[in-house]
Amino acid sequence: MTLTTISSQACHGGAVSVFSHPSSTLGLEARFSVFQPAAALRGESTPVLFLLAGLTCTHETFLQKSTIIAHAAAENLMLVAPDTSPRDAGVPGEDESYDLGSAAGFYLDATNSPWSDHYRMGSYIASELPDLIRTALGQTESRFGIMGHSMGGHGALIHGLRAPDLWHSVSALAPIVHPSVVPWGKKAFAAYLGEDAGRWAEWDAVSLLDSGKRHPREILIDQGMADQFLAEQLRPDLLETMAARKGQPLKLRYHEGYDHSYWFIQTVIADHVAHHARLLGAPS
Amino acid sequence: MTLTTISSQACHGGAVSVFSHPSSTLGLEARFSVFQPAAALRGESTPVLFLLAGLTCTHETFLQKSTIIAHAAAENLMLVAPDTSPRDAGVPGEDESYDLGSAAGFYLDATNSPWSDHYRMGSYIASELPDLIRTALGQTESRFGIMGHSMGGHGALIHGLRAPDLWHSVSALAPIVHPSVVPWGKKAFAAYLGEDAGRWAEWDAVSLLDSGKRHPREILIDQGMADQFLAEQLRPDLLETMAARKGQPLKLRYHEGYDHSYWFIQTVIADHVAHHARLLGAPS
Repeated sequence: MTLTTISSQACHGGAVSVFSHPSSTLGLEARFSVFQPAAALRGESTPVLFLLAGLTCTHETFLQKSTIIAHAAAENLMLVAPDTSPRDAGVPGEDESYDLGSAAGFYLDATNSPWSDHYRMGSYIASELPDLIRTALGQTESRFGIMGHSMGGHGALIHGLRAPDLWHSVSALAPIVHPSVVPWGKKAFAAYLGEDAGRWAEWDAVSLLDSGKRHPREILIDQGMADQFLAEQLRPDLLETMAARKGQPLKLRYHEGYDHSYWFIQTVIADHVAHHARLLGAPS
Repeated sequence: MTLTTISSQACHGGAVSVFSHPSSTLGLEARFSVFQPAAALRGESTPVLFLLAGLTCTHETFLQKSTIIAHAAAENLMLVAPDTSPRDAGVPGEDESYDLGSAAGFYLDATNSPWSDHYRMGSYIASELPDLIRTALGQTESRFGIMGHSMGGHGALIHGLRAPDLWHSVSALAPIVHPSVVPWGKKAFAAYLGEDAGRWAEWDAVSLLDSGKRHPREILIDQGMADQFLAEQLRPDLLETMAARKGQPLKLRYHEGYDHSYWFIQTVIADHVAHHARLLGAPS
């Protein structure tokens, strides 16, 4: 597997690196960021936590703005931050709006033309990138953690529910929980999956729970109550109701005064790292 | 004093805000960022730490990338991050190079035309902005701390040495210590202050020490040994030699493998916050 190092910089005893590789899933070159704690640089296998960012973000955003690295270094966790969509796929209009196309891949596999050729972040997250982390970066762990923000929170929830054996720990920050019924999700799913909403359920966290999917371990979600997208786009109450009905362990915390930004994320990020470190059995 | 709130967002129990105001010193509208810990939002006076960023940065950079806020919140410190230059001053060529003009004000008062009308960050940092923090943000502290990175490290050092009664605690990350003898400094000083290098000493940390200026408390400096600007632009060894000769208390630490970036800054930032909190007598 060809992995090109774009950059590598020391940080908290480890290194923050950007890698590029030809993705067979996406049919394009793809970039991702990694934080390797000191132990990983020495060749030891460490627990791995995937970080999925939201609309308008790149593979760089989460590591730059969340302040997660200090906590990950202390817990001996490797961090993997994929991009939020394929890039330069050549789909007409892919750069025209912030909520469809570039930086808005929704971590699913498009089935609808013209998106279906390259917009396959679903399989990229579920299979190709975890395999690459193991083969190219010396990780022997079979189980990873997954966390995300907003559209990336949606990604963490659906991937966690679809493959709980791979994604051993799951958490989300201000996630979109039921894309099938909110404007961002309806726009993206109609484009990527087609107008038939019956085919949307497999990429929708509330619908997955409703269909019987369940994660055996508690999912942690933090949500700001001054989040400008709370009532229209995020709707964590819908997940809470479905989780209670289906017996999904869930810890959903609301935070008065906090909005949708990384200023909120950094306020609660230590608890998320602790959640994943505990479930992944990280030696700290 | 007219202070316009551009944004204000909850973070770590306090708030990150961007303010704009008509600066009489600069003759232009100016922006700065502030982190107010919870106590400050309740109207209590707290210790204040100024953060000066480097070339190409804005008033937003230090708070977004340094991960300092969690530490400041824990120590009950207010943070003030000014811009790195006047903006839209209308000087011909001010946006043409990264190391002169916009985002390259060098925290001094230009005396040379056409820069001298607006490029007066020296007095802005020394006087107008501290006064504004007291009058508009309810701070009663007479003494502040000052810290900076690269060009901002130069700023922290010169202001600390020029006014040690105001700037009670001083630290720097990868600072330019002797601008009069390095390419970045020579280019900027020649433009802002004129070709007569005899007039540069009052804005140069090593020259200030040489002329008898001294800060009564230990200055903390951290420097990465893989910093791409170390040998040509930064030269902390020159400060170390002069500090030893003049009896300036200095703790200069070198860090193997670290470069000039905010990945390095975030690795050592906790120690800088502790340094200032201790000297400023912050209740923690």
